[in-house]
Amino acid sequence: MDSYTDFAPIAARATPPGESALAVIRISGGGNALGDASDCGALKLLEKCFSRPAVLRAAQGNSVVYGWMIDGAEKVDEVLISVYRAPKSYTGEDGADICCHGGDAAPRAVLNLLLKNGFRQALRGEFSYRAFINGKVDLSRAEAVMEIVGAKGERALAGSVRRLSGALEAEINAVKKLLLDVVCEVELNLDYSEVDGVGSEDAGLPTKESVLAALSRLDHLLALYQTVKLEKEGALVALVGRPNAGKSSLFNLLLKEERSIVTEIPGTTRDWIEGWIEIDGIPVRLADTAGIHEAADKIEQIGIERSAALATSADFVLTIIDGADANPPKPPLQMPGSGLLVWNKCDLNPMPDNFCLDGKRCIAVSAKTGAGLPALVKAIAKELRHLAGSAEEGAAAASTGDAPGTDRQRSLIASAKTALQETLALSDNNAPLDIIAPRLRDALDALGEITGEVSNAGILEAMFGNFCVGK
Amino acid sequence: MDSYTDFAPIAARATPPGESALAVIRISGGGNALGDASDCGALKLLEKCFSRPAVLRAAQGNSVVYGWMIDGAEKVDEVLISVYRAPKSYTGEDGADICCHGGDAAPRAVLNLLLKNGFRQALRGEFSYRAFINGKVDLSRAEAVMEIVGAKGERALAGSVRRLSGALEAEINAVKKLLLDVVCEVELNLDYSEVDGVGSEDAGLPTKESVLAALSRLDHLLALYQTVKLEKEGALVALVGRPNAGKSSLFNLLLKEERSIVTEIPGTTRDWIEGWIEIDGIPVRLADTAGIHEAADKIEQIGIERSAALATSADFVLTIIDGADANPPKPPLQMPGSGLLVWNKCDLNPMPDNFCLDGKRCIAVSAKTGAGLPALVKAIAKELRHLAGSAEEGAAAASTGDAPGTDRQRSLIASAKTALQETLALSDNNAPLDIIAPRLRDALDALGEITGEVSNAGILEAMFGNFCVGK
Repeated sequence: MDSYTDFAPIAARATPPGESALAVIRISGGGNALGDASDCGALKLLEKCFSRPAVLRAAQGNSVVYGWMIDGAEKVDEVLISVYRAPKSYTGEDGADICCHGGDAAPRAVLNLLLKNGFRQALRGEFSYRAFINGKVDLSRAEAVMEIVGAKGERALAGSVRRLSGALEAEINAVKKLLLDVVCEVELNLDYSEVDGVGSEDAGLPTKESVLAALSRLDHLLALYQTVKLEKEGALVALVGRPNAGKSSLFNLLLKEERSIVTEIPGTTRDWIEGWIEIDGIPVRLADTAGIHEAADKIEQIGIERSAALATSADFVLTIIDGADANPPKPPLQMPGSGLLVWNKCDLNPMPDNFCLDGKRCIAVSAKTGAGLPALVKAIAKELRHLAGSAEEGAAAASTGDAPGTDRQRSLIASAKTALQETLALSDNNAPLDIIAPRLRDALDALGEITGEVSNAGILEAMFGNFCVGK
Repeated sequence: MDSYTDFAPIAARATPPGESALAVIRISGGGNALGDASDCGALKLLEKCFSRPAVLRAAQGNSVVYGWMIDGAEKVDEVLISVYRAPKSYTGEDGADICCHGGDAAPRAVLNLLLKNGFRQALRGEFSYRAFINGKVDLSRAEAVMEIVGAKGERALAGSVRRLSGALEAEINAVKKLLLDVVCEVELNLDYSEVDGVGSEDAGLPTKESVLAALSRLDHLLALYQTVKLEKEGALVALVGRPNAGKSSLFNLLLKEERSIVTEIPGTTRDWIEGWIEIDGIPVRLADTAGIHEAADKIEQIGIERSAALATSADFVLTIIDGADANPPKPPLQMPGSGLLVWNKCDLNPMPDNFCLDGKRCIAVSAKTGAGLPALVKAIAKELRHLAGSAEEGAAAASTGDAPGTDRQRSLIASAKTALQETLALSDNNAPLDIIAPRLRDALDALGEITGEVSNAGILEAMFGNFCVGK
C-alpha cells in the first residue's frame, strides 16, 4: 500500500456503492498543528466548489450548511454539509461530511469534483490514522471502529462497541499497572544491590503475586478471544443428506424464521447455496448442498461427493434424514463426525421416541409445518456454544467488551503472556534480576503496542491499511 | 403498497447495505401543522434512546450533536446526529440524519432501536411524499431526486440535477402561462356571447398563435425525452463474432479504457457477460457472448444461436472479424442489421485500406495493442447519437434539464399535446367555444399533474411508491 506521507486534504466516499437515498463523502485536512496551513485546508478547498462559500466560511464547528456542489457555473448536486472544526472532529483536523444524493453518478461526480479542486483520494484507514496521530483514539479503539463496520451479528457489535468505549484499553492499562509496580520494585532492588554490592540478593522476583495476577488476566482475555472470533466470523454449518430428504426446505425455513443477516448469496460460484442467519447472537453461515445440479443418472454419487466436501470444511453438520422415506429410514449418506442428526417430515411419519442412529439421538422436525424448529435451533445454539469454548448459555457475552477484538491484539497478548511465563521461570530458577527485568519490559512493550503507546510507522501502516476507504 | 396514512415519526436506512465507514439513518415527524404534536415528534422520540437528551433538546436546527445511541444502559453505537427543525428540513418536518458506523450490524441495531422506541419503518418514498405535501418540492423536483439516485452516467445526472433545480417546472409553467392566456380570452368571449346572445361569434379560437407556440414547446420536450431516456437507461451494445475473433479481449479493453461504471456483473444468469462503460456521457451496457460455454464439438452452432439472440435484443452490435484468420478473412457469423464491423488483430494483419464487407466499412483495431481504439469509441459514440435522435455531438446535452425525466412526465406531456391538437382541429372546424374550452382545460390539467398542482391520492401513492426507502 501507499504510505500516509502527508496531512494534505483528503476525500473519500464513506458509504457503500448502490442505489440509495443518500451518500456521504468525507473530507479532512488542516486546522491543527500537523495539518497544512489553514488557507489550504479541507474547508478552504471546499469553498471553491460550493455555492455558498461565505456561509461555509462562517459556519461554526458541528453545524450543517445547505447548498449545491458546483463546478464553475454547473450545479453538480444538492448537498448538506456537516462542518467540523479542529480539534472537535473524528480526525482532530478540520473536516466535513458531505451528504449528497445516493446512487452511483452523484457521489462519483461530487468526489471527482473534490479531487479536481485539490483534494487527494484518501488511502484505506487514513481518516482513522489521522485520528490516532492527533490523539483522538488509541489503537484498540481505532480497531474497534473497523470491527463495528465488519460486525455481522448482535454480539460481535456489542463487543466492538464496548471496545470502542475503551473497555479493552482499560483492562490492558490495568494489567500494565500491575506489571509496572513489579518493574519498579525490581529496579529498586537492582539499584540497592548496586549500592550495596550484594550480588546474592538480586536473584528471583521479590514477589510473584502481581505477575501471576497479570498472567491470569491475560489468560482470561485469550480465552474470551475464541468467543469473540466466533461472534465476529461466524460458524459454517452445512446441511447434508440424501436427495429429497428436505435439505432445501429446511434451509429456507431456517433462513426465514431466524433473523437472516444476509439472505441467499446470488450468483455464488461455490458448489452450494448459502445464507447467513443469527442464532443466539452468533452469525451462522448456513450452507445447503441442495443447490447442486444433480445429474439424474448419477445423483447419489454426486450427492455423496459434494456433501463430503462441504462437511469437511464446515464447523459442524446437520444431517437430514427423510423421515417419510421408509421404515426404518435409510441411513444418511455418511455419519457426521460432529453435528446433529435431523429427522425431517415428522408431520408425515412421526419419529419413534428416543430414536437413535449409530448411537446418536435424532431431532424431529417438519420443514413443512415448522414443528420441532425451536428444538433444532436450541440444539444448534448448544453446538455453537461448544465451538466458542463456553458451556453456559450467554456466559461469555457479558464480558467480551474487554476481550481482544483482532488477531493483532490477540497475538500481542500472547506475546506478553509468553514473556511473563519466561519471567516466572527465570525467577523460579533464581536468575539474576538484570536478566529477569528485560523480559518484564518485553511484556509491557507488547501490551503498549495494543493501545499504540509503543508503536512504529510500519506497524501503523500495516494496521490502518486493513481499514476500508473513508474510515 | 401500503398507504401514507399518517404523519407519525418514521425512520429508514438512507444508505445502501455493505461494508463501509458510515451509514445514515434518516428520521422525520412532527414539528409542523400536519405532523403529530411535538411531544411525540421524531426528535422527542429520539431523546429516549440517545445518551445526551438535554443536548439534543437544546440543539438548534442545522446543528450536529455527538453522542451514543443507547438501549437503557447498553451502548448501541457512537453517532453524529444532524438535527433539522421544521420547516427547514427535507420533509418540512422536524427530523434528523443519524450518522452511525457502517457495515451491517451497526445500522441494523440503530434502526431496530428506533423502531423499538416508537418510530415506524418509513415506506418507499415517504420522506419525499411528506416533502411534497408540506410544499417543499413540486412533483417534478421530487421525481428528479429519484432520477439522480438512479443516474448511471454524467449526462443523466446533469439533466436530473437541472430538473431538481426546477428547470422542467419552469418550462411547464411557461407553457401553462401561454395556455392560461388563451383560456382567459376564450372565457371572455364566452361571457360576452352569453351577454349579447350572439351565438355566431363564439366559434373557433380568436387567435391560435399561443396554442401553436405551446404545441411547439411540448414537441421539443418530447423530442428531448428520447435523449433523456437513453442517457438514463443506457444502450445495450453486443459483441458478436466467431470464436477466437477476440471478442473477449476487446470487451476487456473497452471496460478497462473507458470509465467503467459497473464492472463485470458477477454471477449473472444470462448467457453472456456484461459490463457498463460510459461513452460520450451515455451509459453503455456492453455484452460479450464470449462468456458462453462453447461445447467443443458444436462450437459454431452454439456461437451462431447465442450471438443471434443477443444481437436481436441489443440496440446495436459490434461484429468482430478475426483479421489474422485468413486472407480475405472469413465473413462474420451474420451481417448485423445495424452496428459496426470491427477488424480485430490489425497488429498481426493490417486491414486493407477502405476494406468493406457487404458494402459496409470496417474499423481496424488491435485489442492486444490498443491500436484503433479511439476511432472505434468515436464510431460507437456516433451510433449512440443516432439512437438518441441527435445528429450533432453534444447537441442535446445542454438543454435536457428542462426535458421530462420520467415516463409519467412524458405521457402527461403527450396527453397535453393531444388535447392541444384536438383544440386546434376543433377551432379549424369552427366548433363553438364551449366545446373547445374543455379540451384546453384538459391540456392544462395534464401539465398541472406534472408539477403536482393537480393531483389525487392515488397518483401520489403510485408515484412515490417507486422511490427507494429512505427517500
